[in-house]
Amino acid sequence: MTEPLDVAKLQCRLAEFAAARNWQPYHTPKNLVAALSVEASELVEIFQWLTPEESMRVMDDPDTAHRVTDEVADVLAYLLQLCEVLEIDPLAALDAKIDRNERRFPAP
Amino acid sequence: MTEPLDVAKLQCRLAEFAAARNWQPYHTPKNLVAALSVEASELVEIFQWLTPEESMRVMDDPDTAHRVTDEVADVLAYLLQLCEVLEIDPLAALDAKIDRNERRFPAP
Amino acid sequence: MTEPLDVAKLQCRLAEFAAARNWQPYHTPKNLVAALSVEASELVEIFQWLTPEESMRVMDDPDTAHRVTDEVADVLAYLLQLCEVLEIDPLAALDAKIDRNERRFPAP
Amino acid sequence: MTEPLDVAKLQCRLAEFAAARNWQPYHTPKNLVAALSVEASELVEIFQWLTPEESMRVMDDPDTAHRVTDEVADVLAYLLQLCEVLEIDPLAALDAKIDRNERRFPAP
Repeated sequence: MTEPLDVAKLQCRLAEFAAARNWQPYHTPKNLVAALSVEASELVEIFQWLTPEESMRVMDDPDTAHRVTDEVADVLAYLLQLCEVLEIDPLAALDAKIDRNERRFPAP
Repeated sequence: MTEPLDVAKLQCRLAEFAAARNWQPYHTPKNLVAALSVEASELVEIFQWLTPEESMRVMDDPDTAHRVTDEVADVLAYLLQLCEVLEIDPLAALDAKIDRNERRFPAP
Repeated sequence: MTEPLDVAKLQCRLAEFAAARNWQPYHTPKNLVAALSVEASELVEIFQWLTPEESMRVMDDPDTAHRVTDEVADVLAYLLQLCEVLEIDPLAALDAKIDRNERRFPAP
Repeated sequence: MTEPLDVAKLQCRLAEFAAARNWQPYHTPKNLVAALSVEASELVEIFQWLTPEESMRVMDDPDTAHRVTDEVADVLAYLLQLCEVLEIDPLAALDAKIDRNERRFPAP
């Protein structure tokens, strides 16, 4: 039986993967944010010529669904590696941000 | 005592936040990937004129550390909302991607 | 009587502007492409929640029209500075690219 | 003898190219800014793992020089098409922006 996935476990896998290939010298925060933005744009590329309605149906086509899932994984990979290098807890950061947004944009 | 944070719980908070403000009509996959890429670029903006060495010390300054953490939260917020709308499990997507990358880039 | 604007004249103005402020050390190709992508995203930010129809009317509102024009200028500024540093002729590059695209995507 | 290239002539070529392929319906301002940001990121991708020093030598390798020039052309193509659709004069926009920047950042 496998244990459930969590962010810390994936960060470990990513760190081991990079270490085994000696990629850490490339993983400066500056390079990781550039790579993150490049992967985010690869996600945009899939959607750039679609209408809003077509964009809601991207998962209907198995090939496009696979591409989207793959790019989501790449964005998350660089985000988690950035957080590891900068010692940021991404889930705590988001939880705190939602708290601030609830004060900043009060619900009607 | 609060329970530990996890991705599903944050996705719930984000969905409730958007629903309370009637923001769901704006949250098409096309718009969410655009917003994700914009937030990724706001992270790049913090680093754009820094040397690689300076980029490694961004967390030493409390104001910059706060900005970086805030932008990380924004990127994660849009990524999780996109995954919710498209019914993608981001952690499973990344786990599967690391498996594929291990075959694609064998460790030396 | 002023002479018509051209790309070379604007590249001169940009180079003098940067030199007068000692900004050239920051203007590595790597940093300039990052800045270019950040400015392109600031343009995306203006459009991210608009419908396709609303996006066609952005110039009707003078404030938004000014913002869009300003971001277009920023994108062009970094593109021309990158071309200057790398000795690329941007108009010749585009002309050659349209030639290639005409062969790659023959008109029906 | 061919006349010198200028922005207006390239905008004409781009408009004819799109019209001949019936691509105008895709060329909403919202889609064009997305495509512009995707092309800017493809430029970033070439530089993402390079040191500042390596980034200054990208034109030494003919293949990389070709890739960089090609992406510069793509960025310019979408910028000029956006300007055409929104009736923005890109050179005048940049000239006005440099004027404003000279007042905003006085030279020392």
